[in-house]
Amino acid sequence: MGLALLDAASVQGGKVLVFPVDGSHWINMNLLIEGLHTRGHEVTVVRTSTSWYIKEQSPHYQSVTITLSEAMNMEKQDFFVHMLAKVLTLQKEGASIITFVSFYRQMLTMLSSIHHQACQVAEKMFEDKALMQSLRDAQYDMVLMDPGLPIGVLLAHELKLPTVFNVRWITSGEGHFVVAPSPASYVPTSGCAVTDKMTFLQRVKNMFHFLLNIAIDNLVVSPHYNRLVEKYLEPGTNFYQLLQGAHIWLMRVDFVFEFPRPTMPNIIYIGGFQCKPAKPLPADLEEFVESSGEHGVILMSLGSLVKGLPVEITNQIATAFAQLPQKVIWRLPGEPPSTLGNNTMLVKWMPQNDLLGHPKLRMFVAHGGTNGIYEAIYHGVPIVGLPLLFDQFENILRLEVRGAAKGVDVTKLTSQNFVETLQEVLHNPSYRDNMKRMSALHRDKPMHPLETALFWMEFVIRNKGAAHLRTESYKLPWYSYHSLDIMCLLLAVLFLLVAVVVLLMYCLCFKLCRRKDKLE
Amino acid sequence: MGLALLDAASVQGGKVLVFPVDGSHWINMNLLIEGLHTRGHEVTVVRTSTSWYIKEQSPHYQSVTITLSEAMNMEKQDFFVHMLAKVLTLQKEGASIITFVSFYRQMLTMLSSIHHQACQVAEKMFEDKALMQSLRDAQYDMVLMDPGLPIGVLLAHELKLPTVFNVRWITSGEGHFVVAPSPASYVPTSGCAVTDKMTFLQRVKNMFHFLLNIAIDNLVVSPHYNRLVEKYLEPGTNFYQLLQGAHIWLMRVDFVFEFPRPTMPNIIYIGGFQCKPAKPLPADLEEFVESSGEHGVILMSLGSLVKGLPVEITNQIATAFAQLPQKVIWRLPGEPPSTLGNNTMLVKWMPQNDLLGHPKLRMFVAHGGTNGIYEAIYHGVPIVGLPLLFDQFENILRLEVRGAAKGVDVTKLTSQNFVETLQEVLHNPSYRDNMKRMSALHRDKPMHPLETALFWMEFVIRNKGAAHLRTESYKLPWYSYHSLDIMCLLLAVLFLLVAVVVLLMYCLCFKLCRRKDKLE
Repeated sequence: MGLALLDAASVQGGKVLVFPVDGSHWINMNLLIEGLHTRGHEVTVVRTSTSWYIKEQSPHYQSVTITLSEAMNMEKQDFFVHMLAKVLTLQKEGASIITFVSFYRQMLTMLSSIHHQACQVAEKMFEDKALMQSLRDAQYDMVLMDPGLPIGVLLAHELKLPTVFNVRWITSGEGHFVVAPSPASYVPTSGCAVTDKMTFLQRVKNMFHFLLNIAIDNLVVSPHYNRLVEKYLEPGTNFYQLLQGAHIWLMRVDFVFEFPRPTMPNIIYIGGFQCKPAKPLPADLEEFVESSGEHGVILMSLGSLVKGLPVEITNQIATAFAQLPQKVIWRLPGEPPSTLGNNTMLVKWMPQNDLLGHPKLRMFVAHGGTNGIYEAIYHGVPIVGLPLLFDQFENILRLEVRGAAKGVDVTKLTSQNFVETLQEVLHNPSYRDNMKRMSALHRDKPMHPLETALFWMEFVIRNKGAAHLRTESYKLPWYSYHSLDIMCLLLAVLFLLVAVVVLLMYCLCFKLCRRKDKLE
Repeated sequence: MGLALLDAASVQGGKVLVFPVDGSHWINMNLLIEGLHTRGHEVTVVRTSTSWYIKEQSPHYQSVTITLSEAMNMEKQDFFVHMLAKVLTLQKEGASIITFVSFYRQMLTMLSSIHHQACQVAEKMFEDKALMQSLRDAQYDMVLMDPGLPIGVLLAHELKLPTVFNVRWITSGEGHFVVAPSPASYVPTSGCAVTDKMTFLQRVKNMFHFLLNIAIDNLVVSPHYNRLVEKYLEPGTNFYQLLQGAHIWLMRVDFVFEFPRPTMPNIIYIGGFQCKPAKPLPADLEEFVESSGEHGVILMSLGSLVKGLPVEITNQIATAFAQLPQKVIWRLPGEPPSTLGNNTMLVKWMPQNDLLGHPKLRMFVAHGGTNGIYEAIYHGVPIVGLPLLFDQFENILRLEVRGAAKGVDVTKLTSQNFVETLQEVLHNPSYRDNMKRMSALHRDKPMHPLETALFWMEFVIRNKGAAHLRTESYKLPWYSYHSLDIMCLLLAVLFLLVAVVVLLMYCLCFKLCRRKDKLE
């Protein structure tokens, strides 16, 4: 088994150029880079001087740093802190249409400025003749990239390299529109918290989000890249076609968690590729966990982006935890709540995967980012969800409809309703059973998703791409793709036939009448 | 690697009920059955008393035999012999519309009678209370079936068992419509020999075949099964939903050969699952093959269904072969041609896979059935195609556009043009190079397709199905699936808005005019 089918030995020393996206996206990308490095490939990462997470030095990769002004980056970091506060206020107080539209406008402006900055990076690269020549000389085998900020496709096109995406449906605009048919009737659009079983009104809402996403993509995102394509690439090149021309989409999705939907032969599912068995805990943590006895331990973390909730909410959460017989480990970057119980340990960082895999673990209180969710699925730990931003609401919803989680509305959270939710998930065995079932299905695979990801990246290196898995769909204009031109032809023919028949009948009647007139 | 992720040991002794289709379909199904048997599962095959290929006794399975009258089967066997002769005559002489329509009517009548016979088998089973009880008592884990004659879905529904299909897009009606979105703009419809890059006229033709197939399915095929569903299953059950409700589709497709197209999470690709390394040849064959020296050997076979070509064609072929320095091994069930050269060996049967894998093999002259094509791809042997019936034309076309084969129109075949084609494929290295490239891509897989098939069948046994991979699409009415109801709503709202605006403007004008009138 394994690579038994393959005649040639596995590829030796491929060279990979990586265009990552900073923040939580980098955590995933870095895992793939480590994997490539371990398998003997040489990785070069394109980063900016203002990167938060992506370090210049690493044992796993070399880097190319593009210098940007600090100002932009600060603006972005501040934005996320303010954004959460604003979202919570809006949700709590209910927004007037004016407040909402103004907030939405700010979001879109920010989105536009993030893409603008990405394009500045690409522009600096295209303008730096020495850098471009050195990239050409390096003779890379492929470009690995996060299409969240898809400048990599422009550079890959210029360097004539096949692209591999590390992605989760959402790309610049929408993976939905970009790569596979996505009927809005049962495929939830990103940003729209519905399931794959929708009522009529939910389908209307989903269609609205579908059209809205197309509009945002065409009006806010694509123009930045179209400008670059026009400036630096040969005439006739189309930004969308570059995106759609990716050879392999490594999709961080497992249908145990996501709703099943149409897909494509060049989409490879690697959901849960970060999951691995738990390692033993550090002594102090192990002691704390063991001290929980039969009641076990609850873990709480709200991920890497959010620095902290408002203090009135953390106090309510702490009060709720204090009422439970379980021990609680809470990753809290901010100030300790005043109502903290002595069953609760606050930490700035924790070995999350090792804790989730500990037999004493009973429940995970999480914001609903996908990394944490896949770890919880892998270890079969039910979740109480506190979704805050972005896709977190949709993620928790997916677990809820599978009976493996219960979400809490942070803006309505009280110690009372929170403790009730915690107790329900702790004591109703269905949550744990459903999560265990999901865990079993998720683990029941011919090979580990990380191995799958590495196999397909090496496939692209070995075979200089995977174009034979890519459909012809994206080369068609939209009206041809949907066969609208043919429908028009058929309608025209039909119309012509009807017209001819009507005309003939009219002539016939006319003649008959005339004859009748004559006879009379 | 391997099953490393899986906690539980592999399943022990699953019980599988199989509904196969006779003829060449059985060759494929039997391989899966052998695989299941080897892995320790117990297989029961439902066959009829008139089966050609499916034996009652086998070391790999038990069987349940449904008694049918011999008459029907004879009629079917004769039909294929006559059909080929008729098709060749029609193609050669050119058909008048009347001849063509009459032939097409015969084909549809035959299609209908085949499905009718399948339904008789199902009916006999449903009526046989003892048999049904014994099937219930046997407590099978799943139904493995060929949806070409989809009675298995009715029985599986009755027995409350998950279904696994062994299939190649075409099902009762069309896999295209049944399981995944299939835009007719770049997905060739079965029966329509076009590629995934179509001109406008080809797209019109493809759309015509698309609609024709829907019509045939709704008017000729489905009514048989709908009748059974109404008679034996609970009210509200829908035949199409039973088909679409299959848990896993084992698709005998590799996109090295087929055009890439939208797919679904529960479609597992096992194209080439029958391929395996060549074994040494019997001594006499090996001697003949070695005697070819540097020129090598050509293999010719037209598959299992066709008993023989008209004698004038076989004479032309033999004359052509006689002009070549290569040795030829020709599987010919009928009379030896009078023009046979002494470089040509006629055989009634041959170890095709072992010959295709022999280093002396230069070329495969084949009718273009998929089994032979996948073996040729696996071993990297270029093909000269003599397509005769069914999907063979489309199959050869797929190889032609990849530069790995050249097709010959049997009705226009002369020794002269045939020898020219043979020589072109022998001497132009691009055919062999392209086939070698396809072979390398086909073999570059994480696991052998047969292992993949077995893994997913055992997945269904282990997990009592794979419903989490099946989309919700098939539960929607067609107008909801395509969001036509929502489009209507949007249009209605738009119309209303326009109407209100027009009305308001009209009132305003009216008022203004009246005021003007008064002022004057």
